Amino acid sequence: MKICLIGLGAVGQGVLKAIQLKKEAIHERYGLNLKVVAVADSKASVVNENGLDEEEVLNYKKENGSLLNFDCRNNTNNNTNNNTNNNTNTNINNNMSNLNGIELLNTIDYDSLVEATPSNIKTGEPAKSLTLKAFSDKKHVVTSNKGHLALFYLELISSANKNNVEFKFEASVGGAMPIINFPEESLSSANIESIVGILNGTTNYILSRMTSEGSSYENVLDESKQLGIAETDPTMDVEGIDAACKTVILANSVLGINSTYTDVDVTGISKITPESINLAKKEGYLIKLIAEVSSVKLKVGPRLVKKNSPYAIGGTLNMATLKTDLAEDITIIGKGAGSLETASAILTDIINIGKKYKF
Amino acid sequence: MKICLIGLGAVGQGVLKAIQLKKEAIHERYGLNLKVVAVADSKASVVNENGLDEEEVLNYKKENGSLLNFDCRNNTNNNTNNNTNNNTNTNINNNMSNLNGIELLNTIDYDSLVEATPSNIKTGEPAKSLTLKAFSDKKHVVTSNKGHLALFYLELISSANKNNVEFKFEASVGGAMPIINFPEESLSSANIESIVGILNGTTNYILSRMTSEGSSYENVLDESKQLGIAETDPTMDVEGIDAACKTVILANSVLGINSTYTDVDVTGISKITPESINLAKKEGYLIKLIAEVSSVKLKVGPRLVKKNSPYAIGGTLNMATLKTDLAEDITIIGKGAGSLETASAILTDIINIGKKYKF
Repeated sequence: MKICLIGLGAVGQGVLKAIQLKKEAIHERYGLNLKVVAVADSKASVVNENGLDEEEVLNYKKENGSLLNFDCRNNTNNNTNNNTNNNTNTNINNNMSNLNGIELLNTIDYDSLVEATPSNIKTGEPAKSLTLKAFSDKKHVVTSNKGHLALFYLELISSANKNNVEFKFEASVGGAMPIINFPEESLSSANIESIVGILNGTTNYILSRMTSEGSSYENVLDESKQLGIAETDPTMDVEGIDAACKTVILANSVLGINSTYTDVDVTGISKITPESINLAKKEGYLIKLIAEVSSVKLKVGPRLVKKNSPYAIGGTLNMATLKTDLAEDITIIGKGAGSLETASAILTDIINIGKKYKF
Repeated sequence: MKICLIGLGAVGQGVLKAIQLKKEAIHERYGLNLKVVAVADSKASVVNENGLDEEEVLNYKKENGSLLNFDCRNNTNNNTNNNTNNNTNTNINNNMSNLNGIELLNTIDYDSLVEATPSNIKTGEPAKSLTLKAFSDKKHVVTSNKGHLALFYLELISSANKNNVEFKFEASVGGAMPIINFPEESLSSANIESIVGILNGTTNYILSRMTSEGSSYENVLDESKQLGIAETDPTMDVEGIDAACKTVILANSVLGINSTYTDVDVTGISKITPESINLAKKEGYLIKLIAEVSSVKLKVGPRLVKKNSPYAIGGTLNMATLKTDLAEDITIIGKGAGSLETASAILTDIINIGKKYKF
């Protein structure tokens, strides 16, 4: 399977690392031969139809901050299967915009697009255009992006279906925690009635620290920024926007509720005081940012949860409880973020496409 | 798909109930037409090639304790698709032994055996013979049984593979909690390095009650028997035998460790005192019966776990944490027992066979 990776932030780099670490094992176990034929970041792209050396690209990105001027002749790609072909990298040194991403897709021969550009909750771009372009060219798409899914779910899924290609987005919700494909794969006999969970690791970390330390929201937020757990502008996380996007994705994909971002009732955690946390604690409760998905409610907001319940998990963990008819409550817990962890979900999606389409 | 169900205890009855409740939805969603053509309990069996009425069989079993003398003419089966055929039930009134189960399989036309006889950890019978018989006749088998899997895993899997049929046993570990097929389906990019979990609901209930009430083991055991959570002879549960069987099944099926029941180091909970539980509690720990599966250790025994960790779940819940390379820790929690909950796992296995073989 020839992979084109667009987006080389934490997730994109994790994907390259994961493919580098696991491609031999994946070939052995599933007979699937993964080849990254193109990688693009926001500045430039690099192409090698015989497969790029993942480590080389990663090292260049780390040393230079972007793929600009990636040196073609440094390529020590060991892929000897295609030695008859012209085994050189082509570096397209330009400012990668939405349009240029599409130009890249027009230029190369690939099977699956791994789209890992930053989530944009206002326009869904460049993810939306790149994804629709890939679909119209009959290519599969795997993504970790939330913006376009939260805004244009139906349009994207319809296009994938119309073109008979796969659209997989396990990594968009819960990072390494399986939640998108899991109900269909592992709970196919049951009807999923609702999902209630903690879908944002940053806010879970902040609330957990406020609870254990008795510190103020502002102090813990500063600490979280220093640790790299919160971003410099933490609005997406602390105001519940990230969790709301994930709520919409689960509503559409797992519960079949046609909805977009504006349908979610969202409250963040920035108004939570140490006093309210202490009061809850005395009564045996914790305050968590809870997302709820059901046919009657799409909601993200702070809620009291019982100690020793599955909702009481701390740190940056994510969790989700699926309420079902036959199987009652099924809860899943996992790391909701992290470069390699999120990449593991993308790689699972890639493998599942590989299995289904017999690559 | 024509189903033969052998075993009509709590799980078998749950399977009939689940099929009755969901067969229309399953047909709509997956195009899969489920038809129970034969049901056997320990006393007798009843056959109808056009499909038995699940509710009628369940009511008869409840009223009479067995299927002996099930009245054929009571059948009000609505299956009108096959009205051209002779739509009558045939009741085989004999003592169903291992041999008679095999005679039944020789008599009827079916696609999948749902084998729900009681687990036998000494011989694995009658499950083993019934399963091998079905495989040799090129039939798929779905089971909730642990005995034959814990004793003869390799032999059973080899026979299924040799005959190109499916052998599914999601219900054998963790009831409704997906754990057998889940790693392959939802974590295919990751390597599962170990599984650590609570795999027995009865002992989890007893330990949870001892912790919350400060009661003695004996008192809580009596209470559990009255509630139907512990069996009259609770040895299988309280001595860790049930959890050890599940440990072996996970070792073989998820981690690929060729092992049998005798490879597990097993300690039960009958020697745990309220004093030791209190001591742990003071230090922020709980005592749980923990099963551990890794290439270096197959072990079931009481262990200290931290409060607020995923291992701290109470009641009759089961949980398992899969330690992976790419995705770090993934935890799953669900109801480890219950008639309909266990049946949900069996029904998911049936649906997955239906999808794969395009029934």
